[in-house]
Amino acid sequence: MEQGSNRDSWIRAVRPEIKPPSLKDNTADVDRIITALERELEGETVLMDFSLIQEIPSFLRRHGYDMQAVLYKDRRDWRVMDILPPETGGALYGLAVDLGSATIVVRLVDLNNRRKVDEISFINPQIEIGPDILTRIHFANEEGGLEKCRSLLLTGINENIKFLSEKRDIDIGKIVGMSVAGNTTMTHFLLGLDPYGLCREPYIPVINKPALIEAKKLGLDIHPKAPVLIFPNVGSYFGGDLIAGILAQEIADQEDVSILIDVGTNAEVALGNREWLMACAGAAGPALEGGVASMGMMAGPGVIDRIVIEPRSDTFRIRTIGNTPPLGICGSGLIDLVAQLFLAGMIDMRGRFVEGRCGKRLRSIEGMSHLVVVASEDSADGNDLTISQSDIDALLRSKAAMYTILTTITQMIHLSMKDIRHFYISGTFGSVIDPKSAITIGMLPDLPLETYQPVGNTSLSGAELALLSREARDEIYRIRDRVTYIELNVNQDFMNLFSAARFIPHTDRSIFPSVKERSSV
Amino acid sequence: MEQGSNRDSWIRAVRPEIKPPSLKDNTADVDRIITALERELEGETVLMDFSLIQEIPSFLRRHGYDMQAVLYKDRRDWRVMDILPPETGGALYGLAVDLGSATIVVRLVDLNNRRKVDEISFINPQIEIGPDILTRIHFANEEGGLEKCRSLLLTGINENIKFLSEKRDIDIGKIVGMSVAGNTTMTHFLLGLDPYGLCREPYIPVINKPALIEAKKLGLDIHPKAPVLIFPNVGSYFGGDLIAGILAQEIADQEDVSILIDVGTNAEVALGNREWLMACAGAAGPALEGGVASMGMMAGPGVIDRIVIEPRSDTFRIRTIGNTPPLGICGSGLIDLVAQLFLAGMIDMRGRFVEGRCGKRLRSIEGMSHLVVVASEDSADGNDLTISQSDIDALLRSKAAMYTILTTITQMIHLSMKDIRHFYISGTFGSVIDPKSAITIGMLPDLPLETYQPVGNTSLSGAELALLSREARDEIYRIRDRVTYIELNVNQDFMNLFSAARFIPHTDRSIFPSVKERSSV
Repeated sequence: MEQGSNRDSWIRAVRPEIKPPSLKDNTADVDRIITALERELEGETVLMDFSLIQEIPSFLRRHGYDMQAVLYKDRRDWRVMDILPPETGGALYGLAVDLGSATIVVRLVDLNNRRKVDEISFINPQIEIGPDILTRIHFANEEGGLEKCRSLLLTGINENIKFLSEKRDIDIGKIVGMSVAGNTTMTHFLLGLDPYGLCREPYIPVINKPALIEAKKLGLDIHPKAPVLIFPNVGSYFGGDLIAGILAQEIADQEDVSILIDVGTNAEVALGNREWLMACAGAAGPALEGGVASMGMMAGPGVIDRIVIEPRSDTFRIRTIGNTPPLGICGSGLIDLVAQLFLAGMIDMRGRFVEGRCGKRLRSIEGMSHLVVVASEDSADGNDLTISQSDIDALLRSKAAMYTILTTITQMIHLSMKDIRHFYISGTFGSVIDPKSAITIGMLPDLPLETYQPVGNTSLSGAELALLSREARDEIYRIRDRVTYIELNVNQDFMNLFSAARFIPHTDRSIFPSVKERSSV
Repeated sequence: MEQGSNRDSWIRAVRPEIKPPSLKDNTADVDRIITALERELEGETVLMDFSLIQEIPSFLRRHGYDMQAVLYKDRRDWRVMDILPPETGGALYGLAVDLGSATIVVRLVDLNNRRKVDEISFINPQIEIGPDILTRIHFANEEGGLEKCRSLLLTGINENIKFLSEKRDIDIGKIVGMSVAGNTTMTHFLLGLDPYGLCREPYIPVINKPALIEAKKLGLDIHPKAPVLIFPNVGSYFGGDLIAGILAQEIADQEDVSILIDVGTNAEVALGNREWLMACAGAAGPALEGGVASMGMMAGPGVIDRIVIEPRSDTFRIRTIGNTPPLGICGSGLIDLVAQLFLAGMIDMRGRFVEGRCGKRLRSIEGMSHLVVVASEDSADGNDLTISQSDIDALLRSKAAMYTILTTITQMIHLSMKDIRHFYISGTFGSVIDPKSAITIGMLPDLPLETYQPVGNTSLSGAELALLSREARDEIYRIRDRVTYIELNVNQDFMNLFSAARFIPHTDRSIFPSVKERSSV
């Protein structure tokens, strides 16, 4: 008898049929239980830890041989996590975690019906040490620093697990599995491993393929013996989060070539199909996260995420998140804005303001040209919202980096951009970006718009898949072993490509035919 | 490079050759170490526990990639127990333990040269609860009783390990393995498992085949991650001590049929050859341990262990342990005495004193016939040392039980006593008993004297073999699975055999031809 019905689960509750002992069959109790479980699990080996064995005699005296066992499968064998009385009801739960350096998302999943129960997203508490990963790595290298990095992370995760379980009235002991996808550094922090080697030549992680670890050993407040699956990483710059993305988008299964990009401070790129898998990462600059432009902000209420400049009137039609008065702009709004300014002829292909077209919107603040996007009377805080020449330059550097990375990796493997059938853009960025604008500024290649798909948090959805399915869990190790990570060599060729990509959309306008059609220049 | 040279060891120190990392080979540190170890261990899988992985970064920063790893092999894989700087010198040690219910023996072994370094024997501290196993099982069933039984045992063992290691000036962390053979109840106590089921129908042990357990989890004060091999048991009445004996005497490997008997309160018997293995156990009565006769004692200085009655003069020639004045008699002395009394015609075949032959030595004390063995003027304490009619009766019951067990088991498997080529007698009893006397009283079958071999503490020597050799360790599980345990059915047949065996040497004197020759009756 089995709770839930999915044979593909690697965390299961089983109620075995145990023959009671007799003078004719005086098999030892533990052997008897294990044999019954192995029968239930199609002959796969079942192991029971010593601490659980010690509890067996008193369990049997109280409940007899009728029991539920909660088990999980490690690399080869099933391990008994707990023994419960047969009448113990209620579902068993698992957690899928996207361990981001900026934001952490914890999803609570019902392991029986495989449905999402709840989800919470919170700022990575390590932000207290520094917003960027390098600051944290250096901090961890100081006396007590690593332990501090780790405990901030654990405390944050445990508090949010507690919050979720109390909200849903779930006993924490019923959370019997966890799957965590994060980049290599965040993974090291969670494991309490010094990430010192990650940012120094020759860039060596302490570990690439952690085994399943019991929650208690990691300091996670769920069932103490619950297995925690930590996604493996390919190297210092290619972590479990991207492996989760490749899994979630089934890139490694398809005949078509797909590409997955995850844009943050780094742009991480994976592409391939069922025959090959490549990956690379490169600094994309923080402009795309909205952290740099003078009016840039993270997405939130009042933040501009869409802009259209009406062709005849030059009116700026603005959409804000929550439709409240505008307060700032996020990455996708910025891309829209620059694309629209370019199409309206208000900036040229180098990104310079065209004075004759900008007219009264242009003004000089502290010697720098600014364009008023929202006048003070329309803004939320009574100040003009402006974009400066330097904001545009920063965005163009970021978009050039993105495009150059894409060009370089496709060229290295003798592929044309046209060969890419699916272009998955993950994260918040993916869900808000307008591909047409991104193509207009020459950030993304000029492919049919249906090629582009926002795919949300693929790190989280990959983590959830691996939590629920044995096949998916095995697949992440196959993906890991198949991926060829390409070190982007920032040499003269790269710099030449980069310089050409800093123009809007590109110095070679023939590779962006759709932009030429739309452009008024 | 390897400390020691024996490829058959399952506990080893290895100094792997690790290629330093480079930009071309940026394998993670842990993977690098593991791969190097796997190369050293002929491709067998190497696993490293999470707690050790956490120590790797700081180890590498202090010592680089030159290291010694201490590993042990579990059922399938090698597990890294510790990582040491390459210059760490000195031997590694292991402990072999005979976990007797009366006496515990701990032997310290050098794992490199496989030699015994030292050994200590001490009274099982559980004697405080009661001398017999049943009292302890009942005690363990009371509130806190099991924990008390376990902690007495652990404290005793740990104190003696400490004593041995201090005496030999060995760091306790250098003791990296342990092997323990004990009966099923003692094994349960050590594991902290309630032995409640062992003495109640249907006589179910909690566990028969414990896996290797880390010393720390058991509470043993050696290297915390040292593997502890607990010998498996066949059932409630057939424990790891006897499996160790079968291993030590290679009973399961030979073409000849051998028998091993271990005589205590229970007589445990194993017999077989490379094709089959049988075992049984039965109450032999405590007389053979010297605990019952009015002058009976455990072997020690002044205790009579050998007696000859000179044929013509009827003089009792007596040997005592340490050649000091006689104080009492031990089991082997008692067997000699009764055999000699019988051969001298001083007792008849029913064990009754023959007045005409005993003469002045016979006297009545509190209405019971006693024979003076040592007169008061020759004894250590100035009292007569006597043997009573009831002492003789008790011994004859014990010897009858022993002989009946041997008869029953050989008959059950259609074997004749003559088919037994090697008759191993283990323990102190084996080392002191005179087979000729034992045959004379009909306790052991009338086989050629060279058939009988005292083999000492086979539980300890088996434990030592399994500690040192992977092949021997695997063999104990094969032995366990091969042994057929026979439940001795105390029915009318058994009682008939028993009654016949209570005579000296037996009602059927034809089966003891050598006694007939010697006997003057």
